[in-house]
Amino acid sequence: MMLMKKTVNIGLIGFGTIGSGVVETFNRNLPLIEDKVDAKVVLKKIVDLDIVTDRGVQVDPDLLSTNVDDILEDPDMDIVIELIGGYQPALNFILKAIENGKHVVTANKALLARHWEEIMDAARKTGVRVCFEASVGGGIPLLEPLNDSLAANKIQSIYGIINGTANYILTKMSEEGRDFEEVLKEAQKLGYAEQDPTFDVEGHDSAQKLIILTILGFGVYIKQENFHVEGISMITPQDIQFASKELGCVIKLLAISQLLDGQLEVRVHPTLVPEDHLLAAVNGVFNGVYIVGDVVGPVLMYGPGAGMLPTASAVVSDCMDIVGDSKKPLIYGPQISSVESIKPMTEIESRYYLRITAIDKPGVLHSISGILSNFDISIESVNQEKRDEGQEVPIFMVTHHAKEQNMLNAVEKIESLESVTKNTVFIRLL
Amino acid sequence: MMLMKKTVNIGLIGFGTIGSGVVETFNRNLPLIEDKVDAKVVLKKIVDLDIVTDRGVQVDPDLLSTNVDDILEDPDMDIVIELIGGYQPALNFILKAIENGKHVVTANKALLARHWEEIMDAARKTGVRVCFEASVGGGIPLLEPLNDSLAANKIQSIYGIINGTANYILTKMSEEGRDFEEVLKEAQKLGYAEQDPTFDVEGHDSAQKLIILTILGFGVYIKQENFHVEGISMITPQDIQFASKELGCVIKLLAISQLLDGQLEVRVHPTLVPEDHLLAAVNGVFNGVYIVGDVVGPVLMYGPGAGMLPTASAVVSDCMDIVGDSKKPLIYGPQISSVESIKPMTEIESRYYLRITAIDKPGVLHSISGILSNFDISIESVNQEKRDEGQEVPIFMVTHHAKEQNMLNAVEKIESLESVTKNTVFIRLL
Repeated sequence: MMLMKKTVNIGLIGFGTIGSGVVETFNRNLPLIEDKVDAKVVLKKIVDLDIVTDRGVQVDPDLLSTNVDDILEDPDMDIVIELIGGYQPALNFILKAIENGKHVVTANKALLARHWEEIMDAARKTGVRVCFEASVGGGIPLLEPLNDSLAANKIQSIYGIINGTANYILTKMSEEGRDFEEVLKEAQKLGYAEQDPTFDVEGHDSAQKLIILTILGFGVYIKQENFHVEGISMITPQDIQFASKELGCVIKLLAISQLLDGQLEVRVHPTLVPEDHLLAAVNGVFNGVYIVGDVVGPVLMYGPGAGMLPTASAVVSDCMDIVGDSKKPLIYGPQISSVESIKPMTEIESRYYLRITAIDKPGVLHSISGILSNFDISIESVNQEKRDEGQEVPIFMVTHHAKEQNMLNAVEKIESLESVTKNTVFIRLL
Repeated sequence: MMLMKKTVNIGLIGFGTIGSGVVETFNRNLPLIEDKVDAKVVLKKIVDLDIVTDRGVQVDPDLLSTNVDDILEDPDMDIVIELIGGYQPALNFILKAIENGKHVVTANKALLARHWEEIMDAARKTGVRVCFEASVGGGIPLLEPLNDSLAANKIQSIYGIINGTANYILTKMSEEGRDFEEVLKEAQKLGYAEQDPTFDVEGHDSAQKLIILTILGFGVYIKQENFHVEGISMITPQDIQFASKELGCVIKLLAISQLLDGQLEVRVHPTLVPEDHLLAAVNGVFNGVYIVGDVVGPVLMYGPGAGMLPTASAVVSDCMDIVGDSKKPLIYGPQISSVESIKPMTEIESRYYLRITAIDKPGVLHSISGILSNFDISIESVNQEKRDEGQEVPIFMVTHHAKEQNMLNAVEKIESLESVTKNTVFIRLL
């Protein structure tokens, strides 16, 4: 007598890029997948508003539907994959799936970052699992290692590059000495950047992912409006060149969550990273994240942070994880948090790189250095390019460790100087 | 009414370096650990031949015993951690633990590499788990990501630096231009290398770890005697310098397991790695491993590959994983393997770097290039340092892609030339 293997039915909501990657992954590797989880795995239904456009993947037309209830209300559906993104109707779909006792796999970082507690509370009530490896770092094994393989650690810091678009732009600017706007346009043409790139280049995408990492690492849920998020649009080839030549650094958009004396710093901003640091070698659309634990020390996970197939790898592996253990309790992050408070951004300390644009005339540097000194900021180095007197000139400075609040105050004063003609750019050093 | 939490009893066999790290980890993070797994976790017994020496960690003397049956025959013991290393009595202890229905956590790569099937068969019979994240890459989350987070992938290749001692030596040789022997002695003094360093520097440790990676990645168990293992003791500062200056490469000891057209290549040897490759930036005692999946593409895991606390991080996290899901089936690696055959080393193809030592006299280069040509090996570049005629001189060559068998034949012929005075060193390019 042969034992019947259990059958697991999966419904996919959202037949876009990643959804197509999921279908392609099942097409390619179904026998491997089924054998690994020792079950029959059926992609039973695919729901999308558009079920006409050819996605370039082989799919049985009978699987396609425009009615989400074909998934959410199907009593035989075990796992619901949500890949439509955004807040609504994704939230309602996920809550309905949970209410109906279905496990959920999602790549929706925006939704998780905003509705984390609501979703997890609902899932705990009906005893289903919610998995979201694909939501941060695309295909990189990142959340499972953080939550499970490093579970014996108090996490001390998590920091890295978690937005491929911004990293692609910075890499190109650095390699080719080109302007932000120019590289952005090229990235849009190549499909690496959205038509409205704000979300990626201004750090919001990184911020949402950092919220999830911070829950898993520190057991703390912090809303995006409660931490500092800054993008890369003000960075110029001059900054990159100076960083490389004078400081041996590259500029990367980092998401940082780190615990110092019970105070948690959470922030997203461009950062000067030494060239011999592994994160400096994370280029193009790749992502890389350091996790530092009190027992293990520093580990790094690196790989493709987005894209149809890499992200699908994480989605399908999450489904397999659920099949393997559908009863695993939803314990994300340490239950005892070591975080006593969230450190206000104004209180962080850092070394700073400054680019001040001023009219080259006697006394300017004297005024600037006086302001910095008044705010307790000591200068490590100054470089001023030679121009004709009376012309606009960039002044590059690097400071020793200073308080963010002092830097903000100093920059405000500097910008109020008559001879300072443009906004001052300041970038923190790692 | 308060529900009683379940209690999990853990026995530790082996109170050496890593064992002490395990005790220290429990000392530091027990509340975190217990809350995360929602159970009371008790380190109930520690067994070692020596229970007198101070390990520098706080431990209740009542926990110490020299009698392993205090762990193996204790009916209340749930998990046995084996950290004595080596083949016996470790194997017997593990088999006894399994027979008595206890889950096993081990860092013993030598034992797993040799007795994999015996141990796993025994564990499947009694339905216990065997976890071994610490056996490869120390504290780096590596095996769990490979086995679980990337489960939807057909693995295409696994390659990387998995021996910290060899990597430390190569890094020091490279940074300081010093000889192998000199750096090895220093590494021994610092405790980074054993008094008998053969195991690490000749690639055996990497080979054992590669056996485990190959099982998890490709579902194939290959014995060490059946693949090519080569160490770093013949590498000189000259090789490193030439690699850097002429080829823009660093030399790393790589373990490689890759599938090409159904044929699996498994090998450990020094390799020239381009300087802009992330593995080139894995320095000192750190490890870094690339895993390439057909869906996800390349991912890299990096971190401390050995050491008391990093390794303990993996051991304790494994224990937590078992508490979380004690019924997880022992499915390691794909059940359907894509491997049709193991490729003999002689059939692999590579570019090669060659260092030939010969007497500088007319016709030598002509003879050598003739031999290479006869074996279908085409030369990409030649560098010969200027010396006085009649003196010994190193000749550096880089070839285009060639077959290993042809290279072996050519090197044999070259070494039989009268004017060739030393063994020829050849190193493969990544």
